[in-house]
Amino acid sequence: MILSKIDNKVNTPKITLVGAGPGDPELISLKGLKAINCADVILYDAQVNEALLNHAPEHAIKIYVGKKSNDESFSQDAVNKLMIDYALNFGHVVRLKSGDPFVFAKGFEEVDFAESYSIETEIIPGISSAIGVPGLHKIPMTYKDLSESFWVITGTNSHGDISPDLYVAAKSNATVVVLMGVERIEEIASIFAAQGKSRLPVAVIENGSSAHENIKIGIVETIAELVADHRIGSPAILVFGDVVSLHPSFDRIRDFYHVLSEQ
Amino acid sequence: MILSKIDNKVNTPKITLVGAGPGDPELISLKGLKAINCADVILYDAQVNEALLNHAPEHAIKIYVGKKSNDESFSQDAVNKLMIDYALNFGHVVRLKSGDPFVFAKGFEEVDFAESYSIETEIIPGISSAIGVPGLHKIPMTYKDLSESFWVITGTNSHGDISPDLYVAAKSNATVVVLMGVERIEEIASIFAAQGKSRLPVAVIENGSSAHENIKIGIVETIAELVADHRIGSPAILVFGDVVSLHPSFDRIRDFYHVLSEQ
Repeated sequence: MILSKIDNKVNTPKITLVGAGPGDPELISLKGLKAINCADVILYDAQVNEALLNHAPEHAIKIYVGKKSNDESFSQDAVNKLMIDYALNFGHVVRLKSGDPFVFAKGFEEVDFAESYSIETEIIPGISSAIGVPGLHKIPMTYKDLSESFWVITGTNSHGDISPDLYVAAKSNATVVVLMGVERIEEIASIFAAQGKSRLPVAVIENGSSAHENIKIGIVETIAELVADHRIGSPAILVFGDVVSLHPSFDRIRDFYHVLSEQ
Repeated sequence: MILSKIDNKVNTPKITLVGAGPGDPELISLKGLKAINCADVILYDAQVNEALLNHAPEHAIKIYVGKKSNDESFSQDAVNKLMIDYALNFGHVVRLKSGDPFVFAKGFEEVDFAESYSIETEIIPGISSAIGVPGLHKIPMTYKDLSESFWVITGTNSHGDISPDLYVAAKSNATVVVLMGVERIEEIASIFAAQGKSRLPVAVIENGSSAHENIKIGIVETIAELVADHRIGSPAILVFGDVVSLHPSFDRIRDFYHVLSEQ
């Protein structure tokens, strides 16, 4: 790692943070695509669709800096330094991140580090899976008398814990979207159950908007079992809220309760 | 309004809801752009950048169905009916909405109505201004010890009121983003002040990501005055939270308090 410029003929150093969107490579913005089109280097994460790399110029260097569960992973410090090193030596670095770079994605840390080296930075937002993925399944964030707001929370904070905010969210009327929480679904569901919301509708969507997408609809009481039975794992998003009842798969759950209440 | 098909030679009826993103026409997704490329009709809202209409085929009919303050506006019912009518008579209708179609945008209502006529629908999410616009100003939604979640709330619900959720949000540790609230900034700020948060950092961003963008950074105590002094109006988003202190403009506010505390 050198963190200094060794060749004066390279392009002006620049770092562009680009949100790649939730998985479908066509959900990147036109602006994000144009940044890739003129990248000298691309540093990309695990959940970025590699089809996007085909839009880079032939000379561009493409480096995977993602994390995978149980694998060795690049530390944030290592990614920061790589970014600077490549910018100084090759010019335009596109830092390609899944979803939006500023939603639980350390985008600020990276921009801040780059600016401490006086390197020009640009942000190109992306479609966050928190909103876009439920939307693709026609589950709105808010709807008439069902919800007037939505709250997006991490299931795993920087201390490795479920965010304390989730305990407050479970009491609220907001639609609650949990990212990085599917591996703790039992614990998360129990937080809602403790608020008397055992029958609150829940959606879990694995690999949203990609070819391997998988959606299951249930209620707080059943969602952990659904996740276990269908071996749903990360990356997945969880949506807790009455808006989930608008999904057609919820009809059979509603029917089931009608039967129960008639017995 | 006919709501029936009068010519059998038209393309198969289809309605695609497309999120145009926050204002910059290059922030639309590649998929959204491709939908516009093959539209027979485009129904678009007030905050959609009209530059996007240039991507439509020459034969495409372009209809403004937006609302402007104090103007006559299309009712949701009228928009729904237009959508069906055009789909049946012209084929592929692109319903182009600013931001994301499922964030306070009646996207679900429109899809639901279209499906009641057995017309094929597709959703193409967009970058919501709630996330993308602060991001463009390098204000992250969450950051280390400052915030682990964000809560997006409407400043004007279907009853014309500030959402009751805002009173709960003001007590929480979430970053709070308020859409459609700038005209009630005084009332909204007072809700945070009542929670002892008079010095909580606040950003207001008018016409985010467009050529007429305007950002002001303050605190709960000063934000209403800033909005009035600079005549900031709708459309604008409000961001309440410590993450706003990461914006460089906050430095002078921080300095001001240092001076105060030294006196």
